[in-house]
Amino acid sequence: MKLPVSTEWLLHCATTLAQLEPGATASAAQLADYYDLPAPYLAKQLQALVKAGVLAATTGPKGGFRLGRPADEITLLEIVEAVDGGASPYECREIRMRGRGALPPEDCRETCVLAAKMYEAHEAWRRSLAGVTLADVLADLPSGAPARTRSIIAGIPRTPR
Amino acid sequence: MKLPVSTEWLLHCATTLAQLEPGATASAAQLADYYDLPAPYLAKQLQALVKAGVLAATTGPKGGFRLGRPADEITLLEIVEAVDGGASPYECREIRMRGRGALPPEDCRETCVLAAKMYEAHEAWRRSLAGVTLADVLADLPSGAPARTRSIIAGIPRTPR
Repeated sequence: MKLPVSTEWLLHCATTLAQLEPGATASAAQLADYYDLPAPYLAKQLQALVKAGVLAATTGPKGGFRLGRPADEITLLEIVEAVDGGASPYECREIRMRGRGALPPEDCRETCVLAAKMYEAHEAWRRSLAGVTLADVLADLPSGAPARTRSIIAGIPRTPR
Repeated sequence: MKLPVSTEWLLHCATTLAQLEPGATASAAQLADYYDLPAPYLAKQLQALVKAGVLAATTGPKGGFRLGRPADEITLLEIVEAVDGGASPYECREIRMRGRGALPPEDCRETCVLAAKMYEAHEAWRRSLAGVTLADVLADLPSGAPARTRSIIAGIPRTPR
């Protein structure tokens, strides 16, 4: 059970964007340079976050990405599910209805007890991540972090060199 | 983020073994027939559960698998982690220490805030599964389930035909 490596990228990029001045943007090239990531693949993943409403994209010479909503309205769950999808890691293929022990369909109208317990655990995971916003993450960073982040982003060209 | 398909197999096989008479066993061939599963691969996975102490294996003509401990002392977490390992699905590769934005090592002695939140969610998932025993699962099955399970297992040859 593994989340994509890019989950870490997008969590960090969203945290970086949450530290910019209101309305300011950073380009995919800037974010890629900031974390030494492959720009084309990162750009694709940033678009997935735009599609999920977590980020907004603006075009033009000053264009780039910014948060799509205030930092206290964006949860880690939304970012993770934008990257990986929202499916439960447990897949029930209804083996209870197969083989010599197969239960008749009328005994399988309700979700299998085992699948139900696995889905409950996934919901516990989701609730945990839904309870953390980007604003919570920022509150845990050192006080000088936003100024440092803005200064470094400002020093990186918006377009690849 | 996906658990192996065999997670469903092993949860069901352990639930089946929990329904046998005390001391009774079922062979890999019987369990494979019961759920129409590939016997050699299932046997390998059952051995992983033996290694984890969830199951015990006995040899000889009446040999096979039984629970390694009472059903109320075996949690779904132990079964799932015997199949998939216990690693967190989130992998922190410390990208905060890379690229133009790299933090100095002395600022990275503590776990990254984002990784910490992801690990907390994984612990919520683990706690949920650690709170469900095979005895709890059995309590949720119809009252006639154990007798039916025993009868079907008894009708399947111990060795492949």
